Amino acid sequence: MHKKINLGIIGYGNLARGVEYAIEKAPDLELVAVFTRRNPDSVHVRTKDTLVLHVDEAVQYKEQIDVMLLCGGSSSDLPEQGPYFAKMFNTVDSFDTHAKIPEYFATMNAAAEKAKKTSIISVGWDPGLFSMSRMLMEAVLPEGRNYTFWGKGVSQGHSDAIRRVDGVKYGVQYTVPIESALERVREGSLPELQTKEMHIRDCYVVAEEGADKATIENSIKLMPNYFADYDTKVTFISEEEMKENHGAMPHGGFVIRSGATGTGKNKHVVEFSIKLDSNPEFTGSVLTAYARAAYKLSLEGQTGAKTVFDVPLAYLSNKTSEQLRKEML
Amino acid sequence: MHKKINLGIIGYGNLARGVEYAIEKAPDLELVAVFTRRNPDSVHVRTKDTLVLHVDEAVQYKEQIDVMLLCGGSSSDLPEQGPYFAKMFNTVDSFDTHAKIPEYFATMNAAAEKAKKTSIISVGWDPGLFSMSRMLMEAVLPEGRNYTFWGKGVSQGHSDAIRRVDGVKYGVQYTVPIESALERVREGSLPELQTKEMHIRDCYVVAEEGADKATIENSIKLMPNYFADYDTKVTFISEEEMKENHGAMPHGGFVIRSGATGTGKNKHVVEFSIKLDSNPEFTGSVLTAYARAAYKLSLEGQTGAKTVFDVPLAYLSNKTSEQLRKEML
Repeated sequence: MHKKINLGIIGYGNLARGVEYAIEKAPDLELVAVFTRRNPDSVHVRTKDTLVLHVDEAVQYKEQIDVMLLCGGSSSDLPEQGPYFAKMFNTVDSFDTHAKIPEYFATMNAAAEKAKKTSIISVGWDPGLFSMSRMLMEAVLPEGRNYTFWGKGVSQGHSDAIRRVDGVKYGVQYTVPIESALERVREGSLPELQTKEMHIRDCYVVAEEGADKATIENSIKLMPNYFADYDTKVTFISEEEMKENHGAMPHGGFVIRSGATGTGKNKHVVEFSIKLDSNPEFTGSVLTAYARAAYKLSLEGQTGAKTVFDVPLAYLSNKTSEQLRKEML
Repeated sequence: MHKKINLGIIGYGNLARGVEYAIEKAPDLELVAVFTRRNPDSVHVRTKDTLVLHVDEAVQYKEQIDVMLLCGGSSSDLPEQGPYFAKMFNTVDSFDTHAKIPEYFATMNAAAEKAKKTSIISVGWDPGLFSMSRMLMEAVLPEGRNYTFWGKGVSQGHSDAIRRVDGVKYGVQYTVPIESALERVREGSLPELQTKEMHIRDCYVVAEEGADKATIENSIKLMPNYFADYDTKVTFISEEEMKENHGAMPHGGFVIRSGATGTGKNKHVVEFSIKLDSNPEFTGSVLTAYARAAYKLSLEGQTGAKTVFDVPLAYLSNKTSEQLRKEML
């Protein structure tokens, strides 16, 4: 029996709880400590054996923790925490600001290379499994076009936008793929589609007492960038209904590549899709598999920043290569 | 501009023609020669620049060819050709006898290691993309179950079995997934399903003149291993209809993983599917992408036998890592 891979978590929100569940179920992984910026006494983790410590104490665990899972957000946490921890630990994170990935990669790569550590960035499902699908599909079917549909699922950014509207008490926005657009793509006709032609924005709103619902609805539907270009639906519901039916964090989506081979006569459609009851639990489970990979890469001396494109799939599994060839190939 | 990767093909059947088309479209790849066991004069390839040579001459191209694509069959060609060419060239093949993969891997690994070459075995879609999906899905969602459905598509083995029945002139068998089984799997109820509960065997037969159709139908439906356990349909058609409607080689299938995270309350379904007009053209396109990967691995000194589980996805693409991170992550 090999020693277990010792893991740490930075930040204890929904994603971290997903990671914690995933580690619990993995026989080869051990959660040593959760590090928080809050008062550690106020943070209650699932297992008594897991230390809860202030984030400033992490530096003292350089020898004990093989991989640190950075569970902070992409807008303010990771740009700061990523390079800080990459100097001390092998890391995995879910940095998902697509436009800023090249810059984040460069910063993380410099930090990790200097420390001779391995950092796998932008892990999850998009970026992550969806990126892998887009890349793999293009490589094996170069003549064609990729389509990404998101949902049905809660978009945090759009939900936040609703909540900023005057008179809104609570708000949740679901991004919903348009079935007819999905069908057109699957038929292989290679339609030109913009994001707004592929998705509906379905909003559920609890209004403050006395607020004018027509005004709220208009403010949402006319909001530039977020809603104005889309087919947007607004449904007003009671606070009870919001709590009862809209507290979960489902998500999902589809990556579809449609293309041709040979003389162009033979068409092919390749599709990857997910349907998730809990976005943070699934994403946490993906991050946990990549923590295992980060450890293996670091043992081999493959240092610096990596993405899902750089990691052989076998590294994600706790099975041996022999087992994988026998059971899964 | 880097030099092109020079490729060779062993054996010139349907798969090889698929490879040839794929190489033609890849700006970084060049097909140097096709090697055949037939009289080279009788083999007509697509491009005049491609040499057609007898397979015994391949040994003289050790310096010119970076990767050899072995396009023979798994039952008799590859067990012999694989180790023979792995001693001289980096290779890619589509060895698909699942039960014999460990043995074939060991043989190929010994040959390739000795020659300090790289051989990627069992490439295509199953084994290949489907294996990757099964493995990846299990790694990121360990608590759950995998299902593989094949079709709708032509099964060569079952078509051959039909043709061996007395009184059958031509025969084609389509493996067709049972829609209700697919739906049960997608609903996440984790049903116990055997292959025969997941697929229908749909046969199209041209009878010899004067043959008794009822006898043929019975012989097919009662054939052990191939048909007896399945819901098998037999349709008699004319020779004209066979030629007109059943000459293509479509295929496809679905890999679905259904599982749970957290306390087990949150269910997730992950699905990968393909729908192919031409099985050999798509498979050839996959092999071609892996030829690129074999070359890159060999340049790095990663010698020996590899499978799709061992190859970072980025190696399949002709884009740089920078491009991939920027455009596809």
